[in-house]
Amino acid sequence: MSADKIVLALDGMGGDQAPDVVVNGADIARERYPGTSFLLFGDPARLKPLVDKRKGLAQVLEIVPAEDTVLAEDKPSFALRRRRKSSMWLAVDAAAQGNADTVVSAGNTGALLAISMFAMRTVEGAHRPALASFIPTARGESVMLDLGANLECDADNLAEFAVMGSVFAQVLLGLDKPTVGLLNVGSEEEKGHEELRQAAGRLRRAGSPVNFHGFVEGNDIGAGLVDVVVTDGFTGNVALKSIEGTAKLYTQFVRDAFRTSTFAKIGYLFASGAWVKLRKRVDPRRYNGGVFLGLNGVCVKSHGGTDALGFAYAIGVAVDLVRYEYKNKLVEGLARLREVTSTAEASPALQAGGGAE
Amino acid sequence: MSADKIVLALDGMGGDQAPDVVVNGADIARERYPGTSFLLFGDPARLKPLVDKRKGLAQVLEIVPAEDTVLAEDKPSFALRRRRKSSMWLAVDAAAQGNADTVVSAGNTGALLAISMFAMRTVEGAHRPALASFIPTARGESVMLDLGANLECDADNLAEFAVMGSVFAQVLLGLDKPTVGLLNVGSEEEKGHEELRQAAGRLRRAGSPVNFHGFVEGNDIGAGLVDVVVTDGFTGNVALKSIEGTAKLYTQFVRDAFRTSTFAKIGYLFASGAWVKLRKRVDPRRYNGGVFLGLNGVCVKSHGGTDALGFAYAIGVAVDLVRYEYKNKLVEGLARLREVTSTAEASPALQAGGGAE
Repeated sequence: MSADKIVLALDGMGGDQAPDVVVNGADIARERYPGTSFLLFGDPARLKPLVDKRKGLAQVLEIVPAEDTVLAEDKPSFALRRRRKSSMWLAVDAAAQGNADTVVSAGNTGALLAISMFAMRTVEGAHRPALASFIPTARGESVMLDLGANLECDADNLAEFAVMGSVFAQVLLGLDKPTVGLLNVGSEEEKGHEELRQAAGRLRRAGSPVNFHGFVEGNDIGAGLVDVVVTDGFTGNVALKSIEGTAKLYTQFVRDAFRTSTFAKIGYLFASGAWVKLRKRVDPRRYNGGVFLGLNGVCVKSHGGTDALGFAYAIGVAVDLVRYEYKNKLVEGLARLREVTSTAEASPALQAGGGAE
Repeated sequence: MSADKIVLALDGMGGDQAPDVVVNGADIARERYPGTSFLLFGDPARLKPLVDKRKGLAQVLEIVPAEDTVLAEDKPSFALRRRRKSSMWLAVDAAAQGNADTVVSAGNTGALLAISMFAMRTVEGAHRPALASFIPTARGESVMLDLGANLECDADNLAEFAVMGSVFAQVLLGLDKPTVGLLNVGSEEEKGHEELRQAAGRLRRAGSPVNFHGFVEGNDIGAGLVDVVVTDGFTGNVALKSIEGTAKLYTQFVRDAFRTSTFAKIGYLFASGAWVKLRKRVDPRRYNGGVFLGLNGVCVKSHGGTDALGFAYAIGVAVDLVRYEYKNKLVEGLARLREVTSTAEASPALQAGGGAE
């Protein structure tokens, strides 16, 4: 498979509005990314009529029967062991076995992580995978990880996540040296958990594979202070959902404010173009496409409730990761991290504050 | 000191715009809360001219000289040991010794926590104090804690924070049985860290001193799903700052959107009343007044960058905590928590899932 001929495995049955959203999303992506083709896993009786309606798509898509489906309420361990014949399992396996370059699913996040961990394993140099996503900021968009794959993280995990996020931002945002920050309760060097300080110590060293900014705080996320925000999965999950909840709250506050008087309602009408622009800027579909980074393969998680446009964005993320050789770049970065870490451990005197306490 | 004659100790030199904001804030509070009087700690040469300009205030305020000031950059341990003659230390000490009912400071948060912990100790039944604050939600406002006093928390801490927050919401929001949620990465019982599940087990039991909703997620904060959101200080600090950062980002997005066209600018003018209402609704001064809960005393932290109105709100929080006997109610609640916890530990078979794994 050449770089301009990419094969995507799609979980046809995953997501709230599957399979329609998956098929429509693939059709949009097909036009956007010429040269891609699709293996669509799921129930042929439901998939075929949808695909047949789209001539262009039918030419580059093959339906692969899957008799089972991972449900939203399935526990990850159950899906891993008991849904081996599901559209999700077979799609992930296709990417793991090399029959596809990458897999995209809008299904159960925990199940997708468990199955892709099992089928793909982690890439050389990574202890654990992390879930990453884009978030809108005042400066454009940043990458944040981990968003929930690992509730507790040690210094190894956090330092590796920094490399994963950095390479992801290079590939997806086209940045040469993306800035990376570790999420903490203050920006001073002595703040936070021991694991955070240890990870920071490694990332700060000469030869570090990332452009390390230092510690950042919650308000720095929205400000876009750094291109990549690294944290453990518990904190990342809470922060991301807090951000989403606040965005929703403010949208409601603004809407309420414009309902308070006739003048305000007139103002709303005059400003309707501004609203459209605002909504575009914060359109959650634009930030669709969480990715499990650190796997020995490329697995993209689309939001379960997205529409076809959102699913097409998720496919776009997968295409870019393959096209710009994310995995090879990550392996290089992780190798550099290991060198920095082993040098640091061989000469503890060089470590900041080492033995001084 | 009777309930309608409350004495407040004020740190006259704490905060970005001290002492002006402190004196002006006290003057606003004096009118709002008749019967209060003030001990104002700080440099008399700077305080006296400000107080003398306000006749009504001068009658209920006494300046207590303090020759030193805690600086914003002071480490908590340094302020605790080396700033014993500072306005903050002396103000806290006045409340700890019973010369005042409560203390309010807009100074260095870490220093205020360290000093008030040392001078007041924790209340009976509380292992650690927590920093709590109000946050705006779709349903009004909720209480969130801990916001940074304790980076790591065990089940004891979290369960105690739940009681502290619940009593705080009763007293400050006038709620009879405020709902309490533990912040987690999912609402299902089996989610999250062991400490969270243990704390939840205790709060769920019959006789629990709080109206426990269960686990809540980041997006539930803004939705106002519960009246009190409980979490460890690391997660709470990150969540609060993420929320603040997002609020700021959206304000900018909305402003940008209205600058895009002449129509939008006209709309903005028509809607100016709506803007004023919106800004009032999210006015950070209304949410000013973090409180260290769980101390054997009442200590309120005003935001360092607030204005006189914000400082007056912080004073209002302190007045309500004293007037409605927060401390006594907290001691009762913590005693009930201890009963529930010891019963749970004496009969492990009653615990959900106990010994089953």
